[in-house]
Amino acid sequence: MDIKTYKKDYFYSYTLGAFPTLELIKNHKEEILKVLIHSSFTNEEVLNKIKDNSSYYEMSYNDKLISKLASKGNCYIVAIFKKYKMTLNKDKNHILLVNPMDMGNLGTIIRSALGFNIKDIAIISPCVDIFDPKVLRASMGSFFSVNIVIFKSLKEYQSLYPEHVIHAFMLQAKNKLQDFKFNAKYTTLTFGNESSGLDISYLDDNAIVIEHKKDIDSLNLPISIGIALYEFTKQQK
Amino acid sequence: MDIKTYKKDYFYSYTLGAFPTLELIKNHKEEILKVLIHSSFTNEEVLNKIKDNSSYYEMSYNDKLISKLASKGNCYIVAIFKKYKMTLNKDKNHILLVNPMDMGNLGTIIRSALGFNIKDIAIISPCVDIFDPKVLRASMGSFFSVNIVIFKSLKEYQSLYPEHVIHAFMLQAKNKLQDFKFNAKYTTLTFGNESSGLDISYLDDNAIVIEHKKDIDSLNLPISIGIALYEFTKQQK
Repeated sequence: MDIKTYKKDYFYSYTLGAFPTLELIKNHKEEILKVLIHSSFTNEEVLNKIKDNSSYYEMSYNDKLISKLASKGNCYIVAIFKKYKMTLNKDKNHILLVNPMDMGNLGTIIRSALGFNIKDIAIISPCVDIFDPKVLRASMGSFFSVNIVIFKSLKEYQSLYPEHVIHAFMLQAKNKLQDFKFNAKYTTLTFGNESSGLDISYLDDNAIVIEHKKDIDSLNLPISIGIALYEFTKQQK
Repeated sequence: MDIKTYKKDYFYSYTLGAFPTLELIKNHKEEILKVLIHSSFTNEEVLNKIKDNSSYYEMSYNDKLISKLASKGNCYIVAIFKKYKMTLNKDKNHILLVNPMDMGNLGTIIRSALGFNIKDIAIISPCVDIFDPKVLRASMGSFFSVNIVIFKSLKEYQSLYPEHVIHAFMLQAKNKLQDFKFNAKYTTLTFGNESSGLDISYLDDNAIVIEHKKDIDSLNLPISIGIALYEFTKQQK
């Protein structure tokens, strides 16, 4: 098998670094094809964890391939894995992202979601390639602990999760997050694209605004999501 | 004057784009040396705002210099300005950043701070170059509406602002943000470096933790700050 620098249409992707590789092993070892180790890597604890599961995958030392795949350097472990299908839990709260386009942002959002115990993320296409190594890296391995499913439309999502209440975060909303009481059985915190936000069709009585001064146009998307997750989680106790 | 691609030791920096340039004109027009306009730029409203203040600076069409300074393209307005000194308000709440090292993060933090009406940001060195065009771009022009001052140590900061109470955000803190009541006359929300956080010398009875699941090591720095700003602002009403 000839491993090349990632492209969207490949059936595989790869982790860059020891920490995300251990997360991959912990959560999806059956999808791993190969673990590459750099000859200068000597962390015994990590090496043992990789060896403990090596019935699932090949292991090899390959400095050349690692430096080809990891353009940024400082990467000593790479795991090549088959892209896999995920499903969302019907009985958990969700995040819904409409047309997210920035790979770093998506990774950061996944990390925040996991930090606030939301492990089910729906995405409406068009969107960023969720398996791109840049997403995985920005998520710092959190990617492998969450479920992400891409839908063609809001309708398709809603037909599968009819019990989930969509709370659209948008500047035009009347409900202020600071005063809002979440009380749906299942909640879907919903956010638009980085530049354009959510279109007006999402505006309803459940929509929520995070108030900020007019000195700025909007908060950055991962920050809005972090704030929403904080307030939502605070109310779940 | 021969304008070159930015370096830290230059006495000038520059904005990339119409929006941050208008913010610069609004807040610090006396520091502007030159406004460069691309020959294909035709937004009359922006051009008029630039012309209205042209007693303060030179204006010129210079496509070549714009494309040299703006490596990313899609930039039609550049303003070259003298770096200027700022001072912090003694009677306002502050943010204090200890050793921030990521230019994109600092810009995003400035944008959030302005969004939640905190306009005074103290930084303890070593730190990122605050005037780097990458910081200005990530701040989306917010940079020109805030005051940023660099200090050599916490002691130096505290000797100048003795009435400000330091609230250090760190995982070892006992006070949970969700239960905490801010009640100081002047508050300084304090955050550590992206990778290492705050060292243990910051831990005291005023320190605060943003609780998250152990599935992640920590929240991303600008997200922690966004959440802290949200909760702090919510309590000011």
